[in-house]
Order: sequence, then C-alpha cells, then structure tokens
Amino acid sequence: MTRTRQILFASRPRGMPTPDNFRFVETVLPPLRDGQILIKSLFLSVDPYMRGRMNEGKSYIEPFVLNEPIPAGGVGEVVESKHERFAPGDLVVGLIHWADYTLSNGEGLSKLPAIMAPIASAALGVAGMPGLTAYFGLLDIGRPRAGETVVVSGAAGAVGSVVGQIAKMQGCRVIGIAGGKDKCSYLQNELSFDATINYKDGDIRTSLDAACPNGVDVYFDNVGGDITDAVVERINFGARIVICGQISAYNLDRQDVGPRLFTYLLKNSALAKGFIVNDYRERFGEAITALSGWVMEGKLKYREHVVQGLENTVDAFLGLFRGDNIGKIVVKV
Amino acid sequence: MTRTRQILFASRPRGMPTPDNFRFVETVLPPLRDGQILIKSLFLSVDPYMRGRMNEGKSYIEPFVLNEPIPAGGVGEVVESKHERFAPGDLVVGLIHWADYTLSNGEGLSKLPAIMAPIASAALGVAGMPGLTAYFGLLDIGRPRAGETVVVSGAAGAVGSVVGQIAKMQGCRVIGIAGGKDKCSYLQNELSFDATINYKDGDIRTSLDAACPNGVDVYFDNVGGDITDAVVERINFGARIVICGQISAYNLDRQDVGPRLFTYLLKNSALAKGFIVNDYRERFGEAITALSGWVMEGKLKYREHVVQGLENTVDAFLGLFRGDNIGKIVVKV
Repeated sequence: MTRTRQILFASRPRGMPTPDNFRFVETVLPPLRDGQILIKSLFLSVDPYMRGRMNEGKSYIEPFVLNEPIPAGGVGEVVESKHERFAPGDLVVGLIHWADYTLSNGEGLSKLPAIMAPIASAALGVAGMPGLTAYFGLLDIGRPRAGETVVVSGAAGAVGSVVGQIAKMQGCRVIGIAGGKDKCSYLQNELSFDATINYKDGDIRTSLDAACPNGVDVYFDNVGGDITDAVVERINFGARIVICGQISAYNLDRQDVGPRLFTYLLKNSALAKGFIVNDYRERFGEAITALSGWVMEGKLKYREHVVQGLENTVDAFLGLFRGDNIGKIVVKV
Repeated sequence: MTRTRQILFASRPRGMPTPDNFRFVETVLPPLRDGQILIKSLFLSVDPYMRGRMNEGKSYIEPFVLNEPIPAGGVGEVVESKHERFAPGDLVVGLIHWADYTLSNGEGLSKLPAIMAPIASAALGVAGMPGLTAYFGLLDIGRPRAGETVVVSGAAGAVGSVVGQIAKMQGCRVIGIAGGKDKCSYLQNELSFDATINYKDGDIRTSLDAACPNGVDVYFDNVGGDITDAVVERINFGARIVICGQISAYNLDRQDVGPRLFTYLLKNSALAKGFIVNDYRERFGEAITALSGWVMEGKLKYREHVVQGLENTVDAFLGLFRGDNIGKIVVKV
C-alpha cells in the first residue's frame, strides 16, 4: 500500500485550458498484482500534444479519461516488481502518471540505457519523444540537402531546437522563428542557427524576406497560423513542409481561418505532410542511437527548463501555451 | 510564305479572363530557315493550367508574352521541313500556336506514333497531357490501394475522368464530384464510378458523408475552395491529397481564404502534394504506353468535346471556367 499524490483530469476545456481542468488528490495505491510494477516518478513531461488528448472525440490518440490520472511521458525508478522484465532499481522511461507513484503493467515502458542514467531527463527531451519527432520529421519528411534553406517555427522549443541543429549538421542554412529576444539569442549564439526571427518584434514577412533571400526549401512547422502563412508564401519549387504541430490552433474554440495554402503547394510542386512520432515506432532504436551519440559528441546541445515539484506540473503545462520555455520543460518530482 | 490566322495574347486579365484578353490577326509567316518546320494545326488544346500563364510573375511555367501567339498543346501535320528529325507528312504533338500554322524549331514536339493516327486528338487528352497528369498524380502521389476510398473533384474533366477510371482499375471505391446531372450520370453510367456528387445540388458535406461512409483515403483535387475543405474534413489517417488544380482560385483577384487545413493533415498524418506533369517528364514513355494500351483494350474510356474552328478557340477556353465540358475540350482547326 503506497500513498501517492495524483493529478486527475477533471474537465474538458473549451479554448485555453485552466487549472480548473485538473484536480490534485492524495490516494492509496492497492498492492501489486502479478505482472505489475510500482514506479516512483523522477521526471515528468509536459508536452503540447497533450492538449489534443484533453478534447473529446476521435483523433490519432485516445482522449484523456475524466477523473483518471493524467498519463504523460516520464522517467521513473522501479521500486517494486512482480513483472519479469523489470527489477527494483531499474530506471524506466515511457507513459506514467502525473503522480508520485504509478502502478503499471509495463506497457509502453522501456528500461533506460545505463549510459543515459546521468542525463535521465534527456530521455524526455533531446533523446526522447521530442528528439525523435525532430529527427524523423526533418530527415524523413523534410529531407534537407546541403545548401538548402530550412525554416523552423517554435524554434526554441523541445522539438524545434533539435530540428535546427540536425539541419545544420546537414549543411543547411537554418532560420529559427521564436517569440522573444532571449530565445533568439540562445538559438543564434548557443545553437549556431544562421538567423532568427522574433515574431513578436516587427513584420514577419519583412523579416523572412531578409533572412531567406533564396526562399524556403524546408519548413518545419510547429505553430500554424499567420507565421505559417508567411513562410508558405515564400516556399521554393519542390519545397517540403513538415507539419509537426499547430500550437496556435490548439486552444481555439472556433474554426481557424486563413489564406488557402494549397495554391502555394500546387504552384511549387511542394509537399506538406503531417505526422506523429509513433508513425516511426519501428525505427526508434536507430534514432535514439543517433541522437544520444550526437549529445555525447557535443554536436547536439540542449537546454532544459526544470520545474520543481509535482504541485507545479499543471502550471508548467499551461506555460507551454504562454511560450514560457526555452528547450524542454520537465518537472522534477 | 504562308498566310495564317493567329490568336495573340493581348492583355493580362484581372480575375476572370474575357475575349478582350486575346486578339485575332492574320499574318504571313517568313520562309523556313534551317532547323525549322512548318506545322499545319489539326487539333488545338485548351487547358485550365493556361490561366496561370496569363498572369505576370514567377510561377512554375513562363507567363505568356504580350502580343505574341498563344502557345498551347496541339496536334499538327508537318507541311514543310528543314529539320532532320521531321519530314513532310509527319504528325506531331506538342506545343504549337493557337493558329492555322506554326513555325517551330522542333523543341517540345514529338512524332505521333502511327497507331495513334486514327485517334490523333486523344494525344491531347486521355493519352496526352491530361492523361499523364491523372496517371502520375494518382499513382505516384495518391498511391491508392485496393479497397480504399478515392474522391476526385472536377471528375468529369479531362484529368478527373481518367483519374477515376485508373482508381477503379486499382480496386478502389471511386466517388466523383462534378457540377451537373449530365456529368454525374456520365461518370456513373459510362465510366462506372461507384458514386457521384453533383455539388450544385444539395449540401456537399451531407452528400460526402453518404458517399464515403468509411472516410476518404485519397483525394485528387482539381478544384480547391469549399469542395476541397469539405473533403479534407473527412480524410482518414494516412490519407494522400493530390493537388492537381485549384480552378476555383484561378480567377480570383483577391487572396482566397478558408479554413486552415494543415490541422487536418496533422491529425491524420496525411500528405498533400502539388505537382505538374513535367515533374515526371522522364517517365512519360511508360505512362503513354499504359494509357494508350488501356484505351485500346477498352478499359479507359474517354469523351471529347470537339469545338469546330480556330475562331472558337477563345470561347472554348473560357468555357473551362464555366464548367461547360464533359471530358477533354479540343478545337478542330
């Protein structure tokens, strides 16, 4: 019998989520049954895609269940096991609860490689779901070639910052779009982006014209909305648009309306493709090896925004939509 | 010295083109120089893509030049030759002028295979540019699999009617969207489409729900606008959208606005790709063999809308935007 705090899903938001959509409870977990493990949370993830799970109805991923704990990416330590694959002391990564402890049947959990132990939280970021998302989206859909111009929006986020660095490794000219001076100087000075655009300062179209004199060959889109319109207006013949996120639309309670973009795809024989990282599940091993290798070699830098304490998880999540973060937000439980 | 009538490009339209954008002249062609041929027009083509060439500015294809003859697809007979590849009597297909006679250096012209002579005008339609467009767009981008639902808009046009028939050959359920009862009954009764939607009659969304109970796997888009919005709202996970034309937007003199569709691509890991047939130039031989084979075997049916006389070419072209045609429009000179 283990006491744990849990964050439950209390109600479905309309528009922007608020703290009222969540409920903080204390409860007692039942004793382990055969095939179960008890996991103590070390790091919990908050990610933009979770906004989609707060909605009802069909999507690529099941909606959250009301009055149940919120499932999220996390790194934890196995403290008790009646499961043949896991032993007490193992570090695991995968879906656990926004809680101190999670009772799990091991589904969707992997053991963290020993080499990752000192940088365990990176398994939620640069070498985890966001890193994999950047890797497959850019390399498999974007297919950048040396000398091409790659634009990434949401560039200072967990995915965008990895996208830009991988594009640099491919010999591309990389332009990051982000909100705020600090984010832009981080991208340019620490991550070696060729240029950055602070969309909160000045006209995005003028800035894009200056930063992309040869047009745009690959656009990695995390945000949608007017920023995306402005980039798509500037694509080159044969351009590839990677639709990874549309964060500007997640909290709208009406249909998002804008210029029709198919005309630009037609004129430029261009491709646009949406994806989720699970489309590439069979190739995760290859990508994790590459990403953690680049981290070790110092080729792939990352910054984490560490929030302390389970009690601050909801606020950290809401901060994603305020644009609080540079790099990956993780909660240290 | 050959007398010829020519249709010149007189002015660039804003919005819908009118007869005033063209000028009918009679002129005398100079004698042949070495490397030139003189072609007598037999059939001339009018195609929606030509609207794009009437605009100024960068596109995937050069704009028409003011006060010059309009270049268009055509079938003609070589009547004089100082070119080593061509001899008098040869039938040729490729870019000639909207004119009785064209002086050409042979660029972009091919000899029509003897087997095609009795159906020469098909080289402008089912076995020509529109057929090639249907073939590569559907098979290379749409990649339909047996049992999938394929929706094609502009279904009774030169491209759409071929798309639907090739999709049927692949074992797909094929739904055609067209404007008018006659077009729909042609598609359903003569070309064996599984269902048709007359977008001029009733609510397109209700009709799509009825015709596509399992959603849409491949959408071959010739039209854009609200019809496309309605189809994209109904795509399945992994859907492919072939952006072949956006005829509803060609004559707008303002930015076309509508629901932002990237969200649907994201939620469904779906692909949208624009293209022009010239992207596949290296594979034209393969496609012409397949298309003309299917025509000979009776697997690929086609209907032509033959307009008589060069003097009616402009009106035939304008008719494309009124939706006059079932099948390919050709002008018999």
